[in-house]
This record gives sequence, C-alpha cells and structure tokens, in this order.
Amino acid sequence: MTRLAVLGAGAVGRSVAELAAEYGYTVTALADSTSAAVAPDGVDVTAALADKAEGGALGDADPTDALTAEYDVLVEATPTTLGDAEPGFSHVRTALERDRDVVLANKGPVAERFADVRALEAESEGEVLFEATVGGAIPALATIDDLGPERVRAVRGVLNGTANFVLSRMAAEGLDYDHVLAEAQDLGVAEADPSFDVEGTDAALKCVILSNVLREADCDSVEELRERELTLADADVDGIRNVTGGALELAVNDGRTVRLIGEATREGVRVGPRLVPENGTLAVSGTRNIVEIDAEFSGGLAISGAGAGGEETASAVLSDVGRLG
Amino acid sequence: MTRLAVLGAGAVGRSVAELAAEYGYTVTALADSTSAAVAPDGVDVTAALADKAEGGALGDADPTDALTAEYDVLVEATPTTLGDAEPGFSHVRTALERDRDVVLANKGPVAERFADVRALEAESEGEVLFEATVGGAIPALATIDDLGPERVRAVRGVLNGTANFVLSRMAAEGLDYDHVLAEAQDLGVAEADPSFDVEGTDAALKCVILSNVLREADCDSVEELRERELTLADADVDGIRNVTGGALELAVNDGRTVRLIGEATREGVRVGPRLVPENGTLAVSGTRNIVEIDAEFSGGLAISGAGAGGEETASAVLSDVGRLG
Repeated sequence: MTRLAVLGAGAVGRSVAELAAEYGYTVTALADSTSAAVAPDGVDVTAALADKAEGGALGDADPTDALTAEYDVLVEATPTTLGDAEPGFSHVRTALERDRDVVLANKGPVAERFADVRALEAESEGEVLFEATVGGAIPALATIDDLGPERVRAVRGVLNGTANFVLSRMAAEGLDYDHVLAEAQDLGVAEADPSFDVEGTDAALKCVILSNVLREADCDSVEELRERELTLADADVDGIRNVTGGALELAVNDGRTVRLIGEATREGVRVGPRLVPENGTLAVSGTRNIVEIDAEFSGGLAISGAGAGGEETASAVLSDVGRLG
Repeated sequence: MTRLAVLGAGAVGRSVAELAAEYGYTVTALADSTSAAVAPDGVDVTAALADKAEGGALGDADPTDALTAEYDVLVEATPTTLGDAEPGFSHVRTALERDRDVVLANKGPVAERFADVRALEAESEGEVLFEATVGGAIPALATIDDLGPERVRAVRGVLNGTANFVLSRMAAEGLDYDHVLAEAQDLGVAEADPSFDVEGTDAALKCVILSNVLREADCDSVEELRERELTLADADVDGIRNVTGGALELAVNDGRTVRLIGEATREGVRVGPRLVPENGTLAVSGTRNIVEIDAEFSGGLAISGAGAGGEETASAVLSDVGRLG
C-alpha cells in the first residue's frame, strides 16, 4: 500500500490526509510548520487534525521528522513561496535524494526553480508530478501530457477563482471593485490581503509552470532547460484593480465581458484583464476556472472546474499519486 | 519504435496512419475492407492512400494479412457495427490472442460486447483502450481513469456533433428541422442517412460505453461484469426529430435552449432532447461536444472539444497509444 508523507496542514494538506484512505493510501506522516504526527503503520489523521483544531500539535514529532519518515510519496502542500521557493524546494530535494516520488501542491518549486527540480529528478529514481499547482481540480497537466507537450501551442484561461469571482460579480451586478472585493472577503472567497490573487500573481505562477512544461518539450537536456526556463520575474502581469464598473458596463452592452486571462506559450507568459465574449467559453462565472489547450490535431480542448478548494485540489494531488503507478 | 496495424481507412483510420510518424510510431499495416498495405519496416502511408484515392487498392495484400502482420498495437477503426460488433470484435480477439494491445475507434466492441472484450483482455498480455469511442478528441475516459471510475457518479453531455449542429442552428436562426438538416447535409456535417446521429443512437452508444466503465468499477470479476454490462438495447433513447422550431423559440424566450443530452450513470443510460440554460455549460454550439464528469471530491469537471473529425479523433487514438506506455 502506497505510503504518503504530507507536508502542510492547510486546506489542501488536510484534505489529502483525510481523503487518502478513500484512495487506498496510508498517511505515514503529517506535518505543519510546528509539529508532526509520524507512524509507520499509518497516522490517525482524524485524531491528529482534531488535536490541531483544538489548538494543540498534530503529534509529538518535529516537522523535520516527517521528511525522514517511511513513505513512498512526499506530498508537498506547504504555502507557495517565491524566489528560492524554500522550504518547499528543500523538501523536494530531500525526497528525491531518498529516491522517493513527489507530488506538489506548492507552486514555488516548479514556478521558480523548474530546472533545479528536473535536475534533482534526473539523478533520482523518484518522479515529480504537480497537477494541483495549475487550476486546482482541472486535469490540465495530465491532458497536456497525454496530448504530448510538443504538440501544444498555447494554453490560456481563467486561472484564479478570486479574481474571477470579483469580475463576474462586478459585471452581473454593476458594482464597483472595492464593494465586490469586500463582499468576497466576507464570503471567504478573497483573503484579507488579496493582492496575490487580484494582482495576477497566482495566475502568473500557474502560467509560468505551463510555459515551462511546453518549453521543456523542446529541450534535449536539463542544461538547455535551465537556459530556457521561466520564473515569475519573466511574466508580463497586470491585475484587476484598475478594472472599473464603467468599463465592465461598456463591455456588457457590447455582448462582451472582462476576465483575468492568463496565457502561456513557448514565447512567454501574459496575464491581464481581457475582453471576452459574454457567452463564450472563457467567460466562466464565480470561482470556476477554465483552461483552453490549443494543440495540433486535437482541434482545441477546454476544461472547466474548481480551481481551488481543499478537497478539489486534494483530488488532483491524489490523482497524481495514482498516475505515479 | 511502436508499430501500429491500422484497420479501417475511413477518416479516422486514414488520419491515424498519416499522423503516426509525428508521434514517433511506425505503421506496419494499413487495411480497408478490400485490400491492405503491409510492410514490417513501415508502410509508405502517403503512397498507399494516394493509390486508394485514385480508385486503386491500398496495397497488394489482403485485409486479413494486416491482422497477422508484425505490430505492437492494433488500431481498430473500421465502422461501428451493432449486435455482435463484427468484424471489429474478431479483430480485437485476434490481436489480444497474440498478446498485442488494441486501441479502438470503433464503438461496437465496447458498447455491445464490453464483458467479452474484458474477458479476452484478462487472458492476454495485451491491453485495450478506447478513448476515441467517446467524444472524439475529448479526453473523457482518461480523465475518468485518473479520477478513479469508482468515484465518478455520473457523466452527461452533448455527445453528437451532428445533432448539436442541427439544434443550435434551429435555435439561432429560428429554422425548422428539415431545413437545417438539409443544410447540414450540404455542409457534410450530416450524412445522407442521418438516422444514426439524429435518432440518438450514436450518443447512446457513447453513454453505454461510459456506463460500462462506471459499472465495471463495482465489479470484482469479469463474470460479475457480464451480469451488469449494458448494451444499446438497455438505453432509453429519444432523438431530435420531433423538436420543433416553435418549441425552441419558447425555450429561447425563457433563457433556455434545447440540446440532445446523454447521461450515463451506474443505473443506466438516457439520451434525449433536454432544456438547458442558454448560456450554461452544456449549451455548446455547432458540432462541438461537451462532457461533464460528476465525481466525488473534484467538484465537477467539464471538458469540451471536437467530438468528431478524422484528425481530432485520430489524436485521441494516438494519445491512447501513448498511454499504453
């Protein structure tokens, strides 16, 4: 039975741990930033999470004990960090050096240090998958892998549910940005500090990952990939803060609306508010995400689904574990 | 290098043969109903198809020679037949008895004799994949496989492009069924005898395949599957012939429209014209198809794309060949 070590006990890590048994996997370690529960025969996930919910620790082990525990797959679900992508990157390194597989929900390592991850993977018997880093439950990377990334010309879509919620409410109700953002914060759809979402950073990270996957298909070596990889700093990013209710009203009167669209090609990454047909494929509503994959021969595919949410994102993590075989 | 024997030289078989080299595969046999080109080092596909286009034969071999040729994967792209699903079923049998893999574009064997196919597969080292039988280029079965079919509760969608073209034109232009059907025939979107599409048979076959995949997840043995499998005869099917322009107009005035919706669950298969929201996910236009997958945890996914077309369907066949590993 496949054993998982889950790093991170936020919404995604918690859901992975809670759902693992449903998928036939055992959680042998579960860690947050201050403590860990480790048990070679399986952590009592319900008890550990209950202890934490009551203000206690997940268990009596240190977080680093989870990394050295017995496991087959490391699930890295700690918060995304930029730049050196630490501590997530070091977690990936440790697991690969132990010839273990890694499934990422944390975008940092593949958005900011893609070639470093691939270099470690090349030296390891372990493999790294990262479906959950792009579009939550949407199987974007699995589909690109099946189509063959070398045949994919572009990927574009709505990749941030918070920004999409704000724009679709503004358009539907004729309300202003500040009003709808406050509403989204009340509903828990937007964070107290919403800048990561509304400034386009989150969507840009996802597009950087997608572009890296496309670029990698053209590279013969990790060295070549290192020259061609993108990071967030290479992305052309514009958020939704300057989209006015008036601009949306004009668009709607013309049968169009505005969405925060991310586009990833071999050339680069662009994220910004764009006019799209009001009834078109890209005009998903609320927190829903959509990914359009433009590939040779297949005639264009669009996949929509939940772009966030603990359980939904966990389902992508657990599908990745299954794909590891 | 993976060697393909392609049976069937209609739009799909032809495209599979033409695109195989792009995917790194060699075509060692290509057959239609009267002749075959067979070459262990690779058929000259362009020349064989040119000969056929000029009214000649694909090659100097008999069609049955393709079945006994050297190949790793048999691509079964002969026309779908009902009932005993012959001759497609015997082609699958021969390949599996030789421990070869099979990729189906022909719906017959998995819609009408699903348990028989699985029984042969259980005795073989070969494997059978059939993405192209459901929704053309749309990766419905690959996604269900990744989600885990045991977690999929229902699959529904628009699964026939001809019927969808007719309904969406009727709704957009206020035209009657007979008028739009004639137009579709002129455009090559509908066949001279359109009954397979407009009566819902084609959509029902796809839903039967989907339901069989869901049912199989609950079975512990091929014997159990044999008791539970569905065939076309079990489907509840209603076509679009009785949808009037007046009914569509009423729907549109109410913010809705009509689509031929197929639904596959563990309980069974239903296909018929249904009212759907005019701007909703299921109201795709023209020949586009869409598949909604309702699964535990993932929060609902929808995949739209080209449901037919030689090249598009061939891309699903060739992705299946890749998934065989």
